[in-house]
Parts: sequence; structure tokens; C-alpha cells
Amino acid sequence: MKSLSVLDSTLRDGAQGVDVSFSVNDKLAIVAALDAFGVSYIEAGNPASNPKDLAFFERAASLTLRHAKLVAFGSTRRHDMTAEQDSNVAALLAAHTPTVAIFGKAWELHVTDILRVSREDNLAMIADTVAYLRAQEREVIFDAEHYFDGYLANPDYALAVLKTAAAAGADILCLCDTNGGTLPLNLYRIVDETQNALRSEYPQVPLGIHTHNDGGCAVANTLLAVEAGATHVQGTFIGFGERCGNADLSSVLPSLALKGGYAMNGDLAQLTATAQAIAEIANVQLSPGKPYVGRGAFSHKAGMHIDGVLKNRLSFEHVDPASVGNERHFLMSEVAGRGSVLEKIRPYAPDLTRDDPRLASIITRLKELEHDGYQFEAADASFELLTRRILGTYTPHFSLIWYKTMGEFPAPAGELQATATIKIEVDGTSETTAAMGKGPVNALDNALRKALCVFYPHLSEMQLSDYKVRVLNQKAATEATVRVLIESTDKTDTWTTIGVSDDMIEASLEALVDSIEYMLSKERGTRQ
Amino acid sequence: MKSLSVLDSTLRDGAQGVDVSFSVNDKLAIVAALDAFGVSYIEAGNPASNPKDLAFFERAASLTLRHAKLVAFGSTRRHDMTAEQDSNVAALLAAHTPTVAIFGKAWELHVTDILRVSREDNLAMIADTVAYLRAQEREVIFDAEHYFDGYLANPDYALAVLKTAAAAGADILCLCDTNGGTLPLNLYRIVDETQNALRSEYPQVPLGIHTHNDGGCAVANTLLAVEAGATHVQGTFIGFGERCGNADLSSVLPSLALKGGYAMNGDLAQLTATAQAIAEIANVQLSPGKPYVGRGAFSHKAGMHIDGVLKNRLSFEHVDPASVGNERHFLMSEVAGRGSVLEKIRPYAPDLTRDDPRLASIITRLKELEHDGYQFEAADASFELLTRRILGTYTPHFSLIWYKTMGEFPAPAGELQATATIKIEVDGTSETTAAMGKGPVNALDNALRKALCVFYPHLSEMQLSDYKVRVLNQKAATEATVRVLIESTDKTDTWTTIGVSDDMIEASLEALVDSIEYMLSKERGTRQ
Repeated sequence: MKSLSVLDSTLRDGAQGVDVSFSVNDKLAIVAALDAFGVSYIEAGNPASNPKDLAFFERAASLTLRHAKLVAFGSTRRHDMTAEQDSNVAALLAAHTPTVAIFGKAWELHVTDILRVSREDNLAMIADTVAYLRAQEREVIFDAEHYFDGYLANPDYALAVLKTAAAAGADILCLCDTNGGTLPLNLYRIVDETQNALRSEYPQVPLGIHTHNDGGCAVANTLLAVEAGATHVQGTFIGFGERCGNADLSSVLPSLALKGGYAMNGDLAQLTATAQAIAEIANVQLSPGKPYVGRGAFSHKAGMHIDGVLKNRLSFEHVDPASVGNERHFLMSEVAGRGSVLEKIRPYAPDLTRDDPRLASIITRLKELEHDGYQFEAADASFELLTRRILGTYTPHFSLIWYKTMGEFPAPAGELQATATIKIEVDGTSETTAAMGKGPVNALDNALRKALCVFYPHLSEMQLSDYKVRVLNQKAATEATVRVLIESTDKTDTWTTIGVSDDMIEASLEALVDSIEYMLSKERGTRQ
Repeated sequence: MKSLSVLDSTLRDGAQGVDVSFSVNDKLAIVAALDAFGVSYIEAGNPASNPKDLAFFERAASLTLRHAKLVAFGSTRRHDMTAEQDSNVAALLAAHTPTVAIFGKAWELHVTDILRVSREDNLAMIADTVAYLRAQEREVIFDAEHYFDGYLANPDYALAVLKTAAAAGADILCLCDTNGGTLPLNLYRIVDETQNALRSEYPQVPLGIHTHNDGGCAVANTLLAVEAGATHVQGTFIGFGERCGNADLSSVLPSLALKGGYAMNGDLAQLTATAQAIAEIANVQLSPGKPYVGRGAFSHKAGMHIDGVLKNRLSFEHVDPASVGNERHFLMSEVAGRGSVLEKIRPYAPDLTRDDPRLASIITRLKELEHDGYQFEAADASFELLTRRILGTYTPHFSLIWYKTMGEFPAPAGELQATATIKIEVDGTSETTAAMGKGPVNALDNALRKALCVFYPHLSEMQLSDYKVRVLNQKAATEATVRVLIESTDKTDTWTTIGVSDDMIEASLEALVDSIEYMLSKERGTRQ
């Protein structure tokens, strides 16, 4: 099997992404996730440009990593001093990482117009810095910035940059598509020509590839570079990066391992969980359609596709979802046919047949609710309650009789600023109570649970683990309809419920009530 | 210049996407946007599978399109009847479109395992259906489903499928990577071999390409197919589609036009606006890092990149943002240096220098607020107010003294369910008032404007045009911190403000107060 080394730059190039920002603790958590997955290198920051990165490297020095080497990133020395005199180079060494990555300019335009030094000075800056870092016993990855634009403009100079770095002792020569606009066939050809040009003098130095996604081709360009001979791959685990992002390793790695015949030093079955963990730390949502790891990557909506997959999974799945730790889903939607709804509700309605009029009622009601903004693709628990209400196999465990919320500014001294009063009824007995909270939704959540715990003490085991709010018709401004999704957990299960209303409090409460009902029906064993 | 035809399938394949759902009015609005942009074909639905699609085609019959032809989509006839007898084929004709697209199976696995007919029957179904539709004077696009998987398994059968469709009169033969997992170099090779195999018998029939994104390569695969000779491109404008989506035309088209030397029948300067319009109709957010059209596609965050672009835009931009109707942005963030903050605030602080201690105060405050969850990359107006407060060039136009909100369930008969009472002060004069609303935020919005219009009557010209809510720490459930972004407009301008709090009401109010302050400072001419 062919082998590769993989460098993840989520913490360096990824941190340049729009809407991305990491605390030192975030960075440590991401290092742990990447190391557990098993990448070869973790490029963790630029100690010269960012004091937070320096603080990170100080704390990271005590980490014991199982698979990955930490990499500090920086640039070649400034033109008017030696590498030893340059404080940026010193900061790179002060990070105390076994490996350093430095970028040098491979495009003449950058040498003359941005750095404003001579072509020869640029080569000297590269040679000196690589040699100095090697002398300090660092493994050196040389990132040839703008290599592809540079090669198109002047292949001789771009190659001279690589040869200079190799002669000075660079361990890896990484070709960067820094502006991210290189077309796939051009990129393939340039990697191929570069490899041929270096073969006689430097056959032992591995070529790497580092692509950006400005043309939407970062993943494919990385795969093409590997086909052309690159054996070192750089990217970011979920595609974070400057402007349109970097090559997304969660797409690149499974294609190389499952289709390209490459041995991977990562645990592919943890691919989806690792991507989700990084998204969570970074506080972003993975796009549902994200290749391999999105919640919709193996979701089937068209009735014809669902039928096909049920007959033979190869018919509409390019890989087995389990191989990347993901799952197949059949989506409940207006395009879903009777077959897929039946399949979905089979666990709690095993006897329902295709011709039962209640099945038609379920599908009709589903379409009405989707029209109003509900979306059951994610809210499995609300979908189950909805269908069981229609099937007549479900009785609610409580009724919400009345509530009132109040919010106040300024908050009374020392108090939270919202209160809620609530009255509920269980089997003919009512309970009225009140609670405070950080806002009216939180106060109402507190009051409802307090009232219900009188009747159902084990409800205290239930926790809300996720809370999402989506404004549906943004143009309606503060009158807009909102969709709330709540994820809840107890000791054994996790479930998601939904509420939709033009009042945020009402939408939240609806999802909360469904979540509690779902837990109570589980506990009472009323599920068929 | 080389030319291409372009088919957009947002309304057909795109409607199969996770979280995508279109009403008939949505579909008509998207047809208008696509036609104005200038695609060649709009594949608008499958009239046999979906009654909503049939209703759409009835209404669409009266549309006058300037550039595009409408296409109805369906499948080859069923195996046990003639094309004329098949109600699905009849539904396709009933759509009354000049062009129809039909898919036929090109992968033996699908013929034997899913359709469960003989290889010969499958060919006959294709031949009959194409010939029948041609006899009804329809232009016929033949979609060879699973062509690439089929070709890898049995190239002779896959080619026989194409030749059968061509012999029956198909106008375009479209090669589909239905499962979306074909590797770039394989795809390029197969298109090339296919073209060679067809050249002698059917030199005049154009080849098309239709890719899915399950491997993250849909855009690159489309570009590679065009390089190999395809002259018909299918995709969806912003990448909607089953599972991981289809080839994203907003990435494919600018690369072909700006880099590939293809004449396009679309107006590239409208690319970003068209993508935004479709996203808005579909009620989704364009990812900020979306190639060419995302709000971050030409955003620069690292100080070094900002300096580079200011020296020469080619240094970090693969195309001119204006060529695709997008804009360059410099992002305000902790990675931003003094230079980029100075550049950003220059319009209202032209005399501020790099060494002014107030500049350091602005950067420090910016980092603190970003740590709390603020994000000024999108909220330009709040950023301006923040910096002007620190610079001392701004005096607030009112003070919020006190408010109380109430929400009630059930709502009093015939009334809205929330009320807000508020007290404000302007130049020593106070005003107390109250208003109702659909929820507490809406009630408070109404009350605040009512109170302020006493002093600033022209505030009635201000409207909120967008309202977004993001839960930041979702794990904190109903105690979570939320970030609210409000976009406002008057007759001439649009501006965005931000609020962050663990109380949704407070966060909304903060953004609302900034929005009103911004409008008032504009109107009073207090901007420097």
C-alpha cells in the first residue's frame, strides 16, 4: 500500500477563516481530537504573529501526543538581517516543536511587488532560513507559497525556489496553491512536471500539496496532486481557511483511503465524530451536505432512491456510511413516499400497512406542518409523537394550562431578569409554580420542569444538550417565525424535538414540551 | 471562443436536497432569476412524481423567458408497456416544455438489481422512449444515469446505452456521476475515452456532464469533463442536490468563463446577486466561504494578506471580485493588524494615526468583545458606533431607562400574546409608552419605536430588513448566549448591527438600539 503523511492546519490556516476564532483551550481540545484521529502533523499556529499562539505553544509543550508531531509556522528571515538575528525565526524556535513549517515566495510577482527584494535575495533568504532551522535540529517543511501561479508565470524561478530549499536541507517541499484558483488539469500537469524536474537532483525529498478552495476545486486538486506523485498532504479537517477555505481533509482522506489505495495513519471510522467534535469546538454547524461527514451525506429523500438503497445499497451510496462513521437516513419530507414513511415508523407501528388510511393522514399532516416551517428530518422525537398521536397510540402525560413570563430591565438588584409563572395539570391534579431565569425562555424552562418534577421526579435526569434557533422569514424582522430545535439526553438516549412560532417563547416551549413527553413515554414504557 | 450550453437543475435535482423545499411561487421566482442571469435550460421538475411540479408547469406555460428553455424531467418507459401507454411519459408531455430530459440506466447493476429487467429490455426502453419523445417534437436530453460507475464495471454496456439513445435521436447525451464518488482522473479519462468511442458514429451529438459532490469533487469533475470535450454542463446554481449536492454552477461558470476561455450565455457580473437571490428564496444562508459568491470569498483577515492586497490585488485574489459581482472585505478581528483597522475606520476618522493610543484602545476592546461572542465582520454599523464612542466623536441620541415585557398563554381573547412597557429619555425629557407584539421582542421593538418617534418622527422611514439569531454555546440550552444580527434600511442605505446576551430580548434590543442610533447619527449629519 502506498503511504502519505498528512498535515492538519486547522489551528493555523484554519484560524484565518471567516467566522473562525479559537481560544487557547479550544486549540488544546482540537489538538487532542486530531491526535486521537491520527494525523501526522498538527500545524498549530504562528508564534511570531500572534501572542495567543505563543501562549498555546507554552502549554502544548507538556502534551503527550500519540500520533502527531506539533508544527510551528512562520516565514523566511527578513531580507536585512541573518536568520539568527530575526526575532520571528527566534519565536519559531521558542515554540519548541520537533517540526517547523516556513513559507517562502515562489512567485516573482510577490518577490518584486510585495516583498520588494531582488530575486537573488529571496533565494538567499530561503536558503539561510532552512539551513539555520535544520542546524537547530528541526524537521523543516518548506511551503512554496503561490507555487502554481509562480510556475505559470516563470517555471524556472519557481523550480529554483524549490531547489534552493532542497539544497539547504528541507525535509518536505510543499507546493501551495495559495490563491486557490488553479484549474485541476493545470495543477496535475505542474505537479507532474515539477516531480520530473527534481527527480535527478533531489529524488529523496517528498513533494507536498497545499490547496485553497477559491475555485471550488481544493479537494480534487489535492487528489490530483497525489495521483501525480505528491506524498505529503496539507489541509484542514473540516475545510476552515482564509477566504474560501483549505482542502477539506474530511473529504480528501476517505477518498485516498477507500478509493485511492493509500494506507492512512488516521482512524477512518472516527472521521465523522472527529469532524463533529472540531465543528463543536469551533462552534459552527457542519453543512448537512458535507461529503462523507455531513448528516445528509447519506440521506435519501426521493422515493426512487430510497427504494434503490433498500434493494442494494451500492445503487445510491458511493461508500458504506459506516466506513467513515456516518449513518444512512431516510428523510421524511413531501418527496418521501409511503414506503419511506412506513419504514421510518415501523419500530413503533409494526402492523401498519401501506393502505391504512392513517398512513395517508400522517403524510397529509406532515406536508401541512412542513409548509408552516416544521422540518422533521432532524426532529425524530417530534416526528414519533406526531405520528403516534395520529395513530391513536399516544396519550399526553400533562397539560399546559396557563403561563405568564416577565422580563425586566434593569434587573432587580442581585436577581435574574426574567420570571415565569406556570400552571400544569396531570391526571386531574394541577400544580402552579414559578421560577426565575436568564431570559423568559430559560425562566419558563425552569418553571415547567419544577412543576413536572412533583409528578415525575425522574425528569431531573433529563438534560437539554443542544438548543438551536433559526429565523425562517428573516425579512419579517422581529415578527419573524422562528424554528427551535432542542436536543435532549438522559442516561441512555438522545432525542431531538421541534417547535415553530412567531413567538420565540412559544416555539421553545413547544419543543420543550415534546422533549419531556418523549422522555416520559419512554420511561412509562408506553412505546409499542 | 468555445461555447457551452448550461442546464440548471435547482428546481429538480436541487429540490431533492436536505433542508430544501420549494413552493410553486418559489419555483416561479427561481425561474425568473435563472432566466435573467441567462442559463440555457431550466430543468424545473418531474411532473410524474410530484403533483406540485405539475401545478408549476401549468402556471409556467404562460411565462415568457428571454434566455432559457424550460425542461421537464422524467424516466424511460416502464418495461411492460409502450412509451405511448406509459402515464409517466404522458405526464412529461403534458408539461408542454420545448425540451425534455429523461434518464436511463447505464450501470448493469441498476438494470439487474434495481429495475430487474434484462440488459436488452433496458436498451429497448431507452430507444423507444427517446424515439417517441422526438416524434412528439421535443428536444431530448438523455441522462445516462450512473454512467461512470457503469463504465468502470462494463464499458461496452455503458457505451451501448449511449449509442442506443443517439441512434434513437437524442439531442444531447449527458454523462451522470449519479453517486458522486468518481475520482477526478478517472472521470477525465472516461469522458475522453467515451468521446473517442462515439466519434466515428455520432460526431454531431454533444456530450454533457452531470456530477454530484459526494467526494467533494463535483465542480472539478465538471471542469475536467469540459476539458475532455463535454459541451453541455448540468448543475444547480448554488449546489443544492440529493445528499451532498450537485455541481455548483456559481463555481463552475466563472472558472469556465474567466479561466477556461469559454463564452457564457450568462451575465457573470450578476453571479453573486443571482446566488443570493436563490438562497433567499430557498431561505438558506450562503456559506461565507462559498467560492466566488460567498461574503467571505474575497475577505482578508491576516494582516500580511491585507497588506499584500493593498500593494497588488493579484497577490491574494485569483480573480477580480467585481467580475463576479462580489466585493473585497477586510475583516476586523483579532488577527487584523493596526493597518487594517485604520483602513476600515478612515471614512469617519481620517486624521487618526497609527500611533494614536485610541487605536490601541479600539483593538483591545474589539478583542474583548469578540471573546464575548460579538463578531463585527458583518456588523459594520455597530463597529462604527463602537469605534466612534472610543474616539469620542459620538453622542448617543437617547437613553433606555427601563422596560418590562410580559408574555402570556393563552393570549387574552383577540389580543397578541406579548406586551412591553418602556421608558426612554432624550435631552432630559422622558417618554413612557407601551405596545403589544407577537412575542416580547416584537412588543419591545414596537414600544421603543413608538416612544422615539415622539422625538425623531423620521424614524418611521427605518425598516428592519433582516433578523438573524445564532445560539453560541448550544450546550447551555435555554441558558445559552445568543447573538442577534439586525439589518436595517431606509430610503438610501442598509446597515447591520449586533447584540449578544444570554437573554434573547436583551440581545435583540442591543442590536435594535445600535440600529436606531446609527440611523439618527446619519440623519443628524454627525458623521465626520
